[in-house]
Amino acid sequence: MINSDIKRPSPELIDGFRSLLRFDSVTCAISDCLGRFNAMTSDMKPVFEGIRVIGTAVTVKTLASDLAAAFKAIDLSKPGDIVVIDSHGSVNTAFWGENMTMSAVNRGVVAAVIDGACRDVEEIRKLGFPVICKGFVPNVASISGYGEVNVPIQCAGVAVSPGDVIVVDGNGVVVVPQGDAAVILEKTQQLLETEHLLQEKIKAGATIGELINVDEVFKNVFSYQNRALEYAQRSNS
Amino acid sequence: MINSDIKRPSPELIDGFRSLLRFDSVTCAISDCLGRFNAMTSDMKPVFEGIRVIGTAVTVKTLASDLAAAFKAIDLSKPGDIVVIDSHGSVNTAFWGENMTMSAVNRGVVAAVIDGACRDVEEIRKLGFPVICKGFVPNVASISGYGEVNVPIQCAGVAVSPGDVIVVDGNGVVVVPQGDAAVILEKTQQLLETEHLLQEKIKAGATIGELINVDEVFKNVFSYQNRALEYAQRSNS
Amino acid sequence: MINSDIKRPSPELIDGFRSLLRFDSVTCAISDCLGRFNAMTSDMKPVFEGIRVIGTAVTVKTLASDLAAAFKAIDLSKPGDIVVIDSHGSVNTAFWGENMTMSAVNRGVVAAVIDGACRDVEEIRKLGFPVICKGFVPNVASISGYGEVNVPIQCAGVAVSPGDVIVVDGNGVVVVPQGDAAVILEKTQQLLETEHLLQEKIKAGATIGELINVDEVFKNVFSYQNRALEYAQRSNS
Amino acid sequence: MINSDIKRPSPELIDGFRSLLRFDSVTCAISDCLGRFNAMTSDMKPVFEGIRVIGTAVTVKTLASDLAAAFKAIDLSKPGDIVVIDSHGSVNTAFWGENMTMSAVNRGVVAAVIDGACRDVEEIRKLGFPVICKGFVPNVASISGYGEVNVPIQCAGVAVSPGDVIVVDGNGVVVVPQGDAAVILEKTQQLLETEHLLQEKIKAGATIGELINVDEVFKNVFSYQNRALEYAQRSNS
Amino acid sequence: MINSDIKRPSPELIDGFRSLLRFDSVTCAISDCLGRFNAMTSDMKPVFEGIRVIGTAVTVKTLASDLAAAFKAIDLSKPGDIVVIDSHGSVNTAFWGENMTMSAVNRGVVAAVIDGACRDVEEIRKLGFPVICKGFVPNVASISGYGEVNVPIQCAGVAVSPGDVIVVDGNGVVVVPQGDAAVILEKTQQLLETEHLLQEKIKAGATIGELINVDEVFKNVFSYQNRALEYAQRSNS
Amino acid sequence: MINSDIKRPSPELIDGFRSLLRFDSVTCAISDCLGRFNAMTSDMKPVFEGIRVIGTAVTVKTLASDLAAAFKAIDLSKPGDIVVIDSHGSVNTAFWGENMTMSAVNRGVVAAVIDGACRDVEEIRKLGFPVICKGFVPNVASISGYGEVNVPIQCAGVAVSPGDVIVVDGNGVVVVPQGDAAVILEKTQQLLETEHLLQEKIKAGATIGELINVDEVFKNVFSYQNRALEYAQRSNS
Repeated sequence: MINSDIKRPSPELIDGFRSLLRFDSVTCAISDCLGRFNAMTSDMKPVFEGIRVIGTAVTVKTLASDLAAAFKAIDLSKPGDIVVIDSHGSVNTAFWGENMTMSAVNRGVVAAVIDGACRDVEEIRKLGFPVICKGFVPNVASISGYGEVNVPIQCAGVAVSPGDVIVVDGNGVVVVPQGDAAVILEKTQQLLETEHLLQEKIKAGATIGELINVDEVFKNVFSYQNRALEYAQRSNS
Repeated sequence: MINSDIKRPSPELIDGFRSLLRFDSVTCAISDCLGRFNAMTSDMKPVFEGIRVIGTAVTVKTLASDLAAAFKAIDLSKPGDIVVIDSHGSVNTAFWGENMTMSAVNRGVVAAVIDGACRDVEEIRKLGFPVICKGFVPNVASISGYGEVNVPIQCAGVAVSPGDVIVVDGNGVVVVPQGDAAVILEKTQQLLETEHLLQEKIKAGATIGELINVDEVFKNVFSYQNRALEYAQRSNS
Repeated sequence: MINSDIKRPSPELIDGFRSLLRFDSVTCAISDCLGRFNAMTSDMKPVFEGIRVIGTAVTVKTLASDLAAAFKAIDLSKPGDIVVIDSHGSVNTAFWGENMTMSAVNRGVVAAVIDGACRDVEEIRKLGFPVICKGFVPNVASISGYGEVNVPIQCAGVAVSPGDVIVVDGNGVVVVPQGDAAVILEKTQQLLETEHLLQEKIKAGATIGELINVDEVFKNVFSYQNRALEYAQRSNS
Repeated sequence: MINSDIKRPSPELIDGFRSLLRFDSVTCAISDCLGRFNAMTSDMKPVFEGIRVIGTAVTVKTLASDLAAAFKAIDLSKPGDIVVIDSHGSVNTAFWGENMTMSAVNRGVVAAVIDGACRDVEEIRKLGFPVICKGFVPNVASISGYGEVNVPIQCAGVAVSPGDVIVVDGNGVVVVPQGDAAVILEKTQQLLETEHLLQEKIKAGATIGELINVDEVFKNVFSYQNRALEYAQRSNS
Repeated sequence: MINSDIKRPSPELIDGFRSLLRFDSVTCAISDCLGRFNAMTSDMKPVFEGIRVIGTAVTVKTLASDLAAAFKAIDLSKPGDIVVIDSHGSVNTAFWGENMTMSAVNRGVVAAVIDGACRDVEEIRKLGFPVICKGFVPNVASISGYGEVNVPIQCAGVAVSPGDVIVVDGNGVVVVPQGDAAVILEKTQQLLETEHLLQEKIKAGATIGELINVDEVFKNVFSYQNRALEYAQRSNS
Repeated sequence: MINSDIKRPSPELIDGFRSLLRFDSVTCAISDCLGRFNAMTSDMKPVFEGIRVIGTAVTVKTLASDLAAAFKAIDLSKPGDIVVIDSHGSVNTAFWGENMTMSAVNRGVVAAVIDGACRDVEEIRKLGFPVICKGFVPNVASISGYGEVNVPIQCAGVAVSPGDVIVVDGNGVVVVPQGDAAVILEKTQQLLETEHLLQEKIKAGATIGELINVDEVFKNVFSYQNRALEYAQRSNS
């Protein structure tokens, strides 16, 4: 299925997330606010150092290393979009290259996130176009006509829907579901302030272990067998 | 088996490929002309950025992480050769180091391509010797006397024969079978010109999807069950 | 189990190893002297280039991506220690971040070695704190209370005990068991001298293959079936 | 987030899919009708041979190997449900065991699908409860309180939403999005009939290659560079 | 280093663990009592179904796929020992075969545990000798003279010392450190009784989630930033 | 390139290898005679237990999970052939299924060896057709027209040329290059006799370590730095 029309978050919401990029490692704070979830796996790598970008997901579901759906996704993108490609576990043919980059720039696409490989990295680095992927390989994929655009996908271990907010920094990629984006934006702003206060304590010489009283944390652990029996006993008596 | 004498491509052919290195990402164009094949897997990494080299394959088939055959391959190399090592799936002992590098330089070897690990990377970087491999590890492999030199091998997912042309750039490694090298060189030169024309169109604002009419491509896809039955019906009538 | 008190090597021994860091790729020489063993796997990567550090292992055995034991290990560390974390095969949640780094610096910890992921890499790079790990990911691990401190662990394929000497350079990480450290230090110093002499020969034009007479090495190989029968025959006659 | 109430497909729809289980390898036919998509990766394995089951997905999103959400998902299940667990890339602690199996049976759960490990396989085999997972390991995961129930997840490379139809046979696991289920059921029934006709031809001696005229298929392939230029030329003239 | 003499647990202790094998999945209970630790990774597989065995670890540290140390370990074994081999990440040459099996049986060895491959599986199955490993491959490893016997190793993610108790059942392999063995044996016996009581509750219709009151568990989770600030505030006031 | 005509080994040679199948684990003996090489990696698995087959390789080089070349290879096969497919690192779409099996049987193909996935395993097991592959998955690959037939490939870590002899038993798959096949056949027959004599010694109570005098083997190991210097010194004096 090729969905040409998707609901995107408001420009204000996108601007809100963009303003977070002034903080280091903001993907980490966002993930914290998402329940520690929604970060792509640790084998995702930037084509060059220093990529820090935010945008709206246009999703590509590929079969059998087929580029057709990725081409179509570029054509359906709007300025500020990020093309997110589920490469179906294939890492030995490239799903992105120079001509796709130039086409994407023509449409205002701001990044590509691929859980497969890319090629033409020398040109892409010169163009300064942010690509986050699993590796580089000269072989290009096929162009056969399989695949879907703007359907729910998984990419590098995270479910992504068209219109989700994608945030990238030096730590990797985080996916904010569109429906939660406003709440997560606010929570993240609050967390970054709390974090600041916390770091004052550490700068003064404390450790995280002291600050959260880690010795007490170790007491939380229980044998579920014992716990179950205790509860059972209690409810019997 | 240790083959001390192999057939190498002519200096003119090697020069022809070398002249292609003036183009960015030429491995991608060569792979296109090889039917999109013959690129090593995306987990091959350069010891330093900016490696762009071409040479003739001297092949090493190793067993049990044994360095003996790699030592011998260096001794059998001629100026312009690239030592290509099939490390038999082992990535946790090094198949290449500083002394091997210095030995190889003595023989005029221009690069090493290994689908295993290398060590002494600090010295190798200072020497500026191109090594493409799967990672770094301080453990050296054994020296026991197993292994073969200049026999057909696989390296990082590609079959390599002694005398094949090896091309390396920022995208990775491509293997051109010696018998096809002259044809592929010519085809690649042509492709790079075509590519140039194509990019003019994109620079003018087009996308790849528009240029190849990707909507038409999607119509190529068929259910092989239906297609088989249609054909059967046609031949019946 | 949380062991708050471990036996550390003497400052002299640590200083001895530290002085080796003036040589390139000293981890390789140390591994040679350890019988070619004790290097962590080739998928361990530094958070920034140029990390060269030595210290005493404080070990963390984690379960279920739980950070509690890592927090506690920092609190139990002394100046010059390196926190070594066995992440139990988990690479998609982070076991180290900015607050842990700042806490560790407060205690004089000189590096962290983790066979899992880390986050807050932008801050960690600014702080210049050496972390060697398997990748980066924004998701943080849990804080639940499982795990052990200063018990024998494995990290990236090597058994590590609290008090072992950890050496890191551009090739990766080597573990020197505390009991062998004095002997290995001496052996390594000797090897580095021998190495120097050997390299004189190579600089003069020789190859490793020539210097060790690799052709003779190939004759060492035997069919164990034949060898067994030969021995049997010999002992019969 | 823990969603206690999800929309499930109608009993008639489930019955329709269940009736397909009389055919061999029905997951393959369903995947064909889903555009060749939505099969879990090939590293998913049954706890015993011969598992053939269908049910409605109750989803579990785990963090840090935490079992709490899986326990809760069982409590929220209804007869005919299948618990589908996203194990966050962790394969070395178990996410399912005997007590969970017995609890699940109490609620009428018909299978568990986990992209991580399970334990107590000896008891689970005796109970005959279908578990499809990535391996077995005696270590149990933690119980700490992280995780979500009945939210969109990915499991073994496929996006899964609560209420999706899960089909398992000897080939693996296929996910049918709830919204498409009625259409896919009908298409699959049709395909299975077509398949039958096709196989008559093969039984009579034909090959797939002959039946689809594979020689013609090879002519479909194009150089996208050439194709783009042809199109460009055509539109110029 | 080759240690010919190791301290083994008493026959009574071994008998105690052996008697546990009458319970299903006893490795799981033992792991629970070891703090949920010490199970080998989920990619360890039995050469045939139904392996249930216990013994004392004789350890082998291999380099470069060298069999010499494994041969020596067999010669140094005593009746009731299990040979545990650290294969250094190599899975594509075999570390165990028929002749080694027959040699091991001659010495009373009761099993082999290898985090690499084995071969001659057809004969090993006929002999009924328990081997747990990562796969099968016809290539044998080298015999060169590297490697160590009866030193601390890691095997499949667990640190193993000579003399540790190894327990294998259908779930995999658990390592009980010799020093903890008596305590763990007693704890495991107790757990198996508790487990029995717990299962009575479940058989009566309860779920694990109900029995441990999982809803309460979810309340344990905290933001460490908030928790740290709360503690800080409390200690300030 | 599609080569319709390949040179096959003589029927006598094939019969010679077939007669070896009366021995257990003959792939291991053949690999020994090939210098311990040419076995496919340990992650290759049979679709059912007990596969023991020999045949002549018809090779398929696939791109982008495309089945077209596999279809064509079946059409070009002759009785006794084995279709060997290089799946280009893709394991999440199937390269073989029921219709291909039936087509292959029509042509007298005796097995399929694939370093990717297969599907329709329920039917393939009923048909008893030997398939050795990396896993099962319901998704079928594409049919687009890329790929080559009867060219040199790699499959599961071994270079394979059309006409090579393929031998499969419970240990996996071994590739005998056609040019070496006669010599290897004779060597293997001899080895199997020697093996028999060796096993008499072991049955009488010996161990492999004793029979080859493993203590002597350990003395073979050398420091290549020291060895090089010794040689240098010797040649100086």
